[in-house]
Amino acid sequence: MKLLRFGPAGAEKPGHLDDDGQVRDLSGVADDFAGDGVSLEALDRIRATDLSSLPVVADPGRIGPCLARVANFLCVGLNYTQHAIETGAEPPKEPVLFNKTSSCLSGPNDPIRRPNGSQRLDWEVELGIVIGAETWQVSEDDALDRVAGYCIVNDVSERGFQLDHGGQWTKGKSAPTFGPTGPWLVTPDEVGDVQKLALSTTVNGETMQSSNTDDMIFTVRQIVSYMSRFMKLMPGDLICTGTPEGVGMGRSPQVFLKDGDVMELRIDKLGQQRCEVVGT
Amino acid sequence: MKLLRFGPAGAEKPGHLDDDGQVRDLSGVADDFAGDGVSLEALDRIRATDLSSLPVVADPGRIGPCLARVANFLCVGLNYTQHAIETGAEPPKEPVLFNKTSSCLSGPNDPIRRPNGSQRLDWEVELGIVIGAETWQVSEDDALDRVAGYCIVNDVSERGFQLDHGGQWTKGKSAPTFGPTGPWLVTPDEVGDVQKLALSTTVNGETMQSSNTDDMIFTVRQIVSYMSRFMKLMPGDLICTGTPEGVGMGRSPQVFLKDGDVMELRIDKLGQQRCEVVGT
Repeated sequence: MKLLRFGPAGAEKPGHLDDDGQVRDLSGVADDFAGDGVSLEALDRIRATDLSSLPVVADPGRIGPCLARVANFLCVGLNYTQHAIETGAEPPKEPVLFNKTSSCLSGPNDPIRRPNGSQRLDWEVELGIVIGAETWQVSEDDALDRVAGYCIVNDVSERGFQLDHGGQWTKGKSAPTFGPTGPWLVTPDEVGDVQKLALSTTVNGETMQSSNTDDMIFTVRQIVSYMSRFMKLMPGDLICTGTPEGVGMGRSPQVFLKDGDVMELRIDKLGQQRCEVVGT
Repeated sequence: MKLLRFGPAGAEKPGHLDDDGQVRDLSGVADDFAGDGVSLEALDRIRATDLSSLPVVADPGRIGPCLARVANFLCVGLNYTQHAIETGAEPPKEPVLFNKTSSCLSGPNDPIRRPNGSQRLDWEVELGIVIGAETWQVSEDDALDRVAGYCIVNDVSERGFQLDHGGQWTKGKSAPTFGPTGPWLVTPDEVGDVQKLALSTTVNGETMQSSNTDDMIFTVRQIVSYMSRFMKLMPGDLICTGTPEGVGMGRSPQVFLKDGDVMELRIDKLGQQRCEVVGT
C-alpha cells in the first residue's frame, strides 16, 4: 500500500493512493498516521478494508508529511561509504545516532524556510524507516518484522548550526521545515529489497546525489536491531538511514542552498519530493 | 497548581494535588497532560475550574510521569559549573544539547530497570522545564512566558552506552525507565525564583548530589531562548537543564548503581522521587 496524508498543514486526512494514482479518503476507516495509527495492526485493518469502495478525492490539494507527531525522529549519520569519505570521517564502527525534532516535519513539496542566521543550508536524501511495533532489544533476524514501511526524508541540515555551536548535531537538523517526509508511506511488500533502491537529489536540475541503498554501511535490519539495544522504538517512530555522497558541504568547492533554489529528491518505489528554498 | 498523573502505567488520569495533599480527579475537565493538554490555555482552563468541587481520589495508587507522549525530550549537558569540572570538561560556551527518547519516561517512584549489558548506571537529578506554547526564536526576555511549569527529572544515564559506542550521547540516555519524571508538574507561580532551588540525590541514604540551581551556567531563560534559535519548541516538550556535581562517574573512586540500590531525588517546591534499581 501507498499511504499519504493530504490537506492543509495541521488538518491533513489519511489517504490511500490506488493503482490508478487516485487518492482515496481513509478518514472514515483509519486513524491519522501517527503513533499507533501506523502500527502493524492498524495497517492490517486498512488492508482488510475494501479500498476500492472508499471515496475518491477529486482534488487532494497539498500533500502533507506521511507521518504526524513523530515521538522519536532519529537519524543515522555517516552511513554511506562514499559519504563518510567525502566528509573526511572514518567510516563508523557502530551506527552514529542523532535526533531531529518532531516539529521540523513538513510535506514533500512544502517550501523549506531558511531560518535567521542560516548561511550553509544543505540537502540530504535519505531512506526513512517507519516503525510499526514496540521494538526493544530485537535481533537482526527479527528487525524487519517491526517495520511498517518506508518513505523519503530530506534531512535538511544547516551546517553552521550543526558544527559551529558545540555539542551534538541536533542544532543543525531541527528548524521548522527541515524534515520533508513523504509523499508516501510505502509498505514493505511494495518495496521489495530495501537495500537495492536508487536514490538521488537534484538542485535546479543538476544532479548532486546519485547512489543506491546498497552502499549503506549498516543495513536497515542492522540499524533497527542496533538502536533497539539502547532505546525502545515505538509505532510511528521515524528513522533516517543516512545520506549518500554529494551533499553541498562535501563538494569542492562547497555549494549551499540559496533562496529560490529547487531540490528534487527521488527514491525507487517511494516517489519524489520537490521543495523550493525560501527566506524567513 | 501542582498537577500529576495517577493510575496504572499507560492508563493514567490527570489530577490536581490540593493544598491538603489530596488528589482531585481532573479527567472530567482536562485532557491528559501531553502536547496541547499542557498548553498555557489548557492550564488556564484548569485554573478557572472550581477545583475544590472535583472528586477526591481516595487511593490514587501509583503516580505516573507528570507528562505523557513528550514529542521532544531534550537535555542540556554540562550546565553546572562544578559538574563540568568533575567530568574534566571545559565549561561550555554555548548550551550542549542532546535527546532522550519519549519511550524512556516513567513514574517518579517506578523501578529503574538496568538493561542488558549495563555496567555503569548513573543518576542525574535535573530541573525539567515543561513548554506551554509554540516557541520559535524568542528573546531571553520573553522566554519564561512560554513555560507551563517545572518538574523533577532523573536523567538516568548508562555511561558505557553513552561513551563507548561512538557518536552522540542519546544511546546512553534512552532505555525504558531512564526518565523518571514528576511527581508533579508545578506551575511557575508556585515555584518562585527558579534559579534559587536546592536539588539533591541520595543513594541508599547517602547524599551524592547537593547543589542549587544558582550554579547553572545557562539559566532557564537563556536555555529556552537559545534552543528556540534552532528548533520550534511545542507545548508538552520537556527540557532537562543539566545536573550538578556528584554523579557516580565523577566521584573518586567511581560509583555505579547496583540492583537493589534506592535513589531519592529532591528539588525545592517540586517534590521528591524514590526509585529502586532492578535487573532486567
